[in-house]
Amino acid sequence: MPKKIKKLAVLTSGGDSPGMNAAIRSVVRTCAYHDVECVGVYRGYEGLIEGDFKSMGARSVRGIINKGGTILKSARSQTFRTPEGRKIAYQNLVDNNIEGLVVIGGDGSFTGALVFNQEFGFPVMGIPGTIDNDIFGTSHTLGFDTALNTVVDAIDKIRDTASSHNRLFFIEVMGRDVGHIALNTGIAGGAEEILIPEEDLGLDRLVESLNRSRKSGKTSSIVIVAEGDKIGKNIFELKEYVDDNMEGYDVRVSVLGHMQRGGAPSCFDRVLASRMGVKAVETLLEGKTNYMVGLIANKMELTPLDNAIKGKTKINLELLRVSDIMSI
Amino acid sequence: MPKKIKKLAVLTSGGDSPGMNAAIRSVVRTCAYHDVECVGVYRGYEGLIEGDFKSMGARSVRGIINKGGTILKSARSQTFRTPEGRKIAYQNLVDNNIEGLVVIGGDGSFTGALVFNQEFGFPVMGIPGTIDNDIFGTSHTLGFDTALNTVVDAIDKIRDTASSHNRLFFIEVMGRDVGHIALNTGIAGGAEEILIPEEDLGLDRLVESLNRSRKSGKTSSIVIVAEGDKIGKNIFELKEYVDDNMEGYDVRVSVLGHMQRGGAPSCFDRVLASRMGVKAVETLLEGKTNYMVGLIANKMELTPLDNAIKGKTKINLELLRVSDIMSI
Amino acid sequence: MPKKIKKLAVLTSGGDSPGMNAAIRSVVRTCAYHDVECVGVYRGYEGLIEGDFKSMGARSVRGIINKGGTILKSARSQTFRTPEGRKIAYQNLVDNNIEGLVVIGGDGSFTGALVFNQEFGFPVMGIPGTIDNDIFGTSHTLGFDTALNTVVDAIDKIRDTASSHNRLFFIEVMGRDVGHIALNTGIAGGAEEILIPEEDLGLDRLVESLNRSRKSGKTSSIVIVAEGDKIGKNIFELKEYVDDNMEGYDVRVSVLGHMQRGGAPSCFDRVLASRMGVKAVETLLEGKTNYMVGLIANKMELTPLDNAIKGKTKINLELLRVSDIMSI
Amino acid sequence: MPKKIKKLAVLTSGGDSPGMNAAIRSVVRTCAYHDVECVGVYRGYEGLIEGDFKSMGARSVRGIINKGGTILKSARSQTFRTPEGRKIAYQNLVDNNIEGLVVIGGDGSFTGALVFNQEFGFPVMGIPGTIDNDIFGTSHTLGFDTALNTVVDAIDKIRDTASSHNRLFFIEVMGRDVGHIALNTGIAGGAEEILIPEEDLGLDRLVESLNRSRKSGKTSSIVIVAEGDKIGKNIFELKEYVDDNMEGYDVRVSVLGHMQRGGAPSCFDRVLASRMGVKAVETLLEGKTNYMVGLIANKMELTPLDNAIKGKTKINLELLRVSDIMSI
Repeated sequence: MPKKIKKLAVLTSGGDSPGMNAAIRSVVRTCAYHDVECVGVYRGYEGLIEGDFKSMGARSVRGIINKGGTILKSARSQTFRTPEGRKIAYQNLVDNNIEGLVVIGGDGSFTGALVFNQEFGFPVMGIPGTIDNDIFGTSHTLGFDTALNTVVDAIDKIRDTASSHNRLFFIEVMGRDVGHIALNTGIAGGAEEILIPEEDLGLDRLVESLNRSRKSGKTSSIVIVAEGDKIGKNIFELKEYVDDNMEGYDVRVSVLGHMQRGGAPSCFDRVLASRMGVKAVETLLEGKTNYMVGLIANKMELTPLDNAIKGKTKINLELLRVSDIMSI
Repeated sequence: MPKKIKKLAVLTSGGDSPGMNAAIRSVVRTCAYHDVECVGVYRGYEGLIEGDFKSMGARSVRGIINKGGTILKSARSQTFRTPEGRKIAYQNLVDNNIEGLVVIGGDGSFTGALVFNQEFGFPVMGIPGTIDNDIFGTSHTLGFDTALNTVVDAIDKIRDTASSHNRLFFIEVMGRDVGHIALNTGIAGGAEEILIPEEDLGLDRLVESLNRSRKSGKTSSIVIVAEGDKIGKNIFELKEYVDDNMEGYDVRVSVLGHMQRGGAPSCFDRVLASRMGVKAVETLLEGKTNYMVGLIANKMELTPLDNAIKGKTKINLELLRVSDIMSI
Repeated sequence: MPKKIKKLAVLTSGGDSPGMNAAIRSVVRTCAYHDVECVGVYRGYEGLIEGDFKSMGARSVRGIINKGGTILKSARSQTFRTPEGRKIAYQNLVDNNIEGLVVIGGDGSFTGALVFNQEFGFPVMGIPGTIDNDIFGTSHTLGFDTALNTVVDAIDKIRDTASSHNRLFFIEVMGRDVGHIALNTGIAGGAEEILIPEEDLGLDRLVESLNRSRKSGKTSSIVIVAEGDKIGKNIFELKEYVDDNMEGYDVRVSVLGHMQRGGAPSCFDRVLASRMGVKAVETLLEGKTNYMVGLIANKMELTPLDNAIKGKTKINLELLRVSDIMSI
Repeated sequence: MPKKIKKLAVLTSGGDSPGMNAAIRSVVRTCAYHDVECVGVYRGYEGLIEGDFKSMGARSVRGIINKGGTILKSARSQTFRTPEGRKIAYQNLVDNNIEGLVVIGGDGSFTGALVFNQEFGFPVMGIPGTIDNDIFGTSHTLGFDTALNTVVDAIDKIRDTASSHNRLFFIEVMGRDVGHIALNTGIAGGAEEILIPEEDLGLDRLVESLNRSRKSGKTSSIVIVAEGDKIGKNIFELKEYVDDNMEGYDVRVSVLGHMQRGGAPSCFDRVLASRMGVKAVETLLEGKTNYMVGLIANKMELTPLDNAIKGKTKINLELLRVSDIMSI
């Protein structure tokens, strides 16, 4: 049986996502439940180095479960990428009698945690918080579900005006390397085409498909474009190309941007965050380290951080096919 | 290889739920994709008996993916419970050359479909549409996710006023036989207690727990109560009991009611509906019958209608524990 | 020119409403802008008596403009109704060098402020905060616009299910003495009838009207009922009466309740709150007292508290007529 | 007394805005109420020329009061700018026995209506539908209130991520010639600065102000920029300038775009649309022409179309001052 841990720390790192506050709350309250002290670290690894710590009790996380962003703030730390920086961070943790660290963030944040553990043997645990859903070892990252609803709500609004004017809209959504947001919101928003990094539709086929849509009686169209799609043109160039190569459409562009990261988390993300916080803390208390908690088939499961970082999520081919059928 | 099916029908039955329209759209477009005619039946089994049919093409379901309710309307049919009624329904289907039926509804609707198949050998396929998530063979029924967000949004609003006044609120949510909505929204809404049909907390322990909450520094509290909870008192009696047995709280009641059934479906429900419609139609086209399509571990799976009806969903015990820890 | 005021206090009293926090923020920042100290008083007049004060600077109201409820909390104080209670309150203000008081609340709260001023000559200023819009001297009270949107959103959801099932819904909204919420949301929600305290439609005419609706081809109907309507029956008795006296409708009841008081304030309410806070503080700084700030023809205007309390708002007869025409 | 009008037409023209459908519904039902036939014209003046008419009864506008966009669609018509085009339009109206026309749109659309009336003496009436609130003769144009809420909701989401990362965001909102949207949403969104066409703050003062914000303890900031602001740089150039001339901020840009035009109309806009439709129809029935209906001091008032077109709305200077005070 492992030595009883008496004090843990939690930080949020990388891009923020809805549900991070709910996860902080869960970590803090699970600590309280097990009579473990909990310390919040501000601005991710930066605060670890600066010793920007705050003691957190069950009541200190009151009223944050429904707030977007992260009360602990987030940052990217250059200093933590250096051995010297990590040395200071380690010393701060030791000086404060902290015996384990929960890192809420994406794979960059997990890489930092893993290196930190390898150097100092300090127990770390990861909670996947990012809207991109691009982390191996969980069917849903924290914030993904909320971001989907935010995007779909925006598409619904744009469709109002698109269909009032017989317009073609290109809507850019987040997802630099993966098309999960684009694919799901494209289906849910009734998009005619979805351009994702994993597939290169090609410009000719895009125009061909849009022409087919028109002929089938559609008077307006929406194309969802993931930030990182491989069609070789940015969304404004896409518009120009289609303007030049298609008739009859008034083409417009909308880049949804950072509003996708904010907002009150959905019920799904709040429950997920609550579950992940419990699992992360209790796994540390069991004496384990270097795992990420994740949702697999609706159950909480552990994945070694190493696998979470190296593994790739794959686009669901069934969804691609559903999208094709729906846009007939 | 089965004989090529040329015409299918689709109906919605029982209580409506968000996502039913998205499912109708998917059934209709999947038919169009496979060059199969599609017929919409109005008011569930009632319309089957009255021959209230409408031919539906890909464009006829335009703009409904984001609408709550069901454009085909729903009803409970007494006549369909009689052999005579079902005989007429069967004759109407045959007269219209319809060769298979997709039923979107709950277990009552599936029972009707199964009986109908047993009597006439008519191919039927079920899509689970209900906000209660009480159907075996799918991790999520259509509309469940949307209802969760609707309820959580209402709880957030009530908490604003609860915490401004140091009040205790009992909030009744839907769920006659199962506590899925109560349990998930209770966690997501930060409830102090959650009363569900599956567990009988008992009045004494409820009051004890609320007293503990007060002492821990909470100045307002929310208790989520499933319609069908077993505490032996309705929600207004609960209020009276607590009024009589606790001091210091101003106790209020809120019954969320039918607004839980409406609203634009969430991204999750729209994608789920789209997938289920494809799977239901394509399974019928493969010559199969008497299945329900469902989501299991994020994949589309088939469950015999018989099992779907008889099986029971279970409350996730992990969620109960998470709820306990979160309300510390 | 009046003596320079150096310190003001602000409190929220009575039922809370969305926008109260935005008004607190405005009072605090307007004080900071004029180099006046600002003190927040907790739980309304109760906190005045208990000396529950907190010094508030410009940064202390960060991030609250979009939060429902009131961070200063609200309460109804029995003690403040006694001369002894008010004496203690006055002494607390004097001891803390506070020279004026902004009261955010309804007419009950204003009556308290007026009595307080009459007894001690203490400068007071009112900001009308209530969702009911029942205060003379302003076209809109703080929170009214937000509550309208909350109610309309709920009606939209209920209509989804009403029209899927050919149902008649009675929906009860807030408004004990006035029908402003009912009348506006009835029009916006497309209600067939609106029952308000100011008009007694009578049961017979209600049933007659609903029958006419059916005959005109409407398959579902929504009736909005203000809490305080004069039809002589509560909403559940209404349902029974209609059940007994009409055929063909499945009648349901929904009581929206306290969720109407919460939620993020609308843009309108946030701007109104910001304007009212500025006006209230600057009017006190000019040496005036016993006024309520209000919106009249889109301008900030002052109304003597006495008139605000005694005056009655009237239902807009044009809206009644519009409602009649729309439900043809 | 004027000759009894028996048939009216309604069209939507120019950019669409939330509430246009509610206005169409009101025009149609007010006609039905007065036993006047009503004809909907598709795609604005284009449909007038093409004779793209549809007879509309009270039930044909069912379920549209809460839908964004316009079911009659909108377009800009080059042909209607020619005397030949208008001649054909006139003939189509005469051939269909239409005796008056309600135009829902902005000042471009009203100019068309006025020219049309001058040439043919055909009775026309305007309903101001645009989110920009840039039309003289009404305190609120249809859709303005809804757009404000849409923008504020987006700002709230962006603030979540801005404050999690100590970021400065430039958010561009609609308003080519007027700053009403920017000014109201800037106040409601808690923006540090608001750049509008009516005022040229100047780049130096902007940077100065942002530096002052930082020093006052603000760790993140939001600047709202109207499309048409006069600072001489587009929003991306603004970002570059600030990047080059300020330290410590991570500067980001968000262009909200066309989602501002869509969405379910707010309660305010639905009520306003309903009132305007009644007033427009009844004014035509009184034999009047060439007016725009508008809201002035919460009452329905008429303004000659000529004045509505030539008049300019002015920015509310009180709001500018409130914004300054709030961002202390």
